Amino acid sequence: MKEALKEARKGLKEGGIPIGAVLVRGGKIIGRGHNRRVQKLSAILHAEMDCLENAGRLKAADYAECVIYSTLSPCPMCTGAILLYKIPTVVIGENRTFQGPESYSGKFLKLINLDLPECRALMAGFIAEKPELWDEDIGE
Amino acid sequence: MKEALKEARKGLKEGGIPIGAVLVRGGKIIGRGHNRRVQKLSAILHAEMDCLENAGRLKAADYAECVIYSTLSPCPMCTGAILLYKIPTVVIGENRTFQGPESYSGKFLKLINLDLPECRALMAGFIAEKPELWDEDIGE
Repeated sequence: MKEALKEARKGLKEGGIPIGAVLVRGGKIIGRGHNRRVQKLSAILHAEMDCLENAGRLKAADYAECVIYSTLSPCPMCTGAILLYKIPTVVIGENRTFQGPESYSGKFLKLINLDLPECRALMAGFIAEKPELWDEDIGE
Repeated sequence: MKEALKEARKGLKEGGIPIGAVLVRGGKIIGRGHNRRVQKLSAILHAEMDCLENAGRLKAADYAECVIYSTLSPCPMCTGAILLYKIPTVVIGENRTFQGPESYSGKFLKLINLDLPECRALMAGFIAEKPELWDEDIGE
């Protein structure tokens, strides 16, 4: 989660939305990314999506051994991507800023919420500064 | 749907997975795309995602007036993206080749299945030829 936070902070520095994610397999980071809506004028590069994209085209057997870490509860799109690839474990930094459809996940994934103050603070600061950007990102 | 099929065929010609999508607002196509897993070595560029990405960063008010057309029933990731942006109407070419989680959508979107033989034939031909690529794309 420390590495996901690094990604989130990198995004903030770039003028973007500070959410980061890493994909881990067997203790090794095999993909990392951060939200790049602003940087890439992207409608789909949320942190988890950017991370999955950077991990490249993996096989189902690879995903089955992965854990995805995200600084924030995944939105419907990112939850859907995690379900598509059947990534069994999702660790999130917090879900107070935004809570994605964690119930979709009930079927086959394990969600661990670390509820970290540093993740919450990062988002709170950002949303206070740029609420319209945040609203756009979560489809409001 | 004719335009979505054009996109799907473009994908096939490029050596890719033949699924296409278009985003329509007020009778005008404002985004179009096709699956580019192969072409871009992408884990996230399904047709609907490519289409949403090409449409650019829209506001919730824009998406609220859109219809998304896809030649195939959207997978969990694409369904999630449609739910994230609250696109109210989804028109699909078929859902016999693959049926995404259409029940997720029950809440607020209208799904129209045209069940078109040309969409089915396109996928059947492709899957017969490259089953391993198809399995990879749907996370099998």
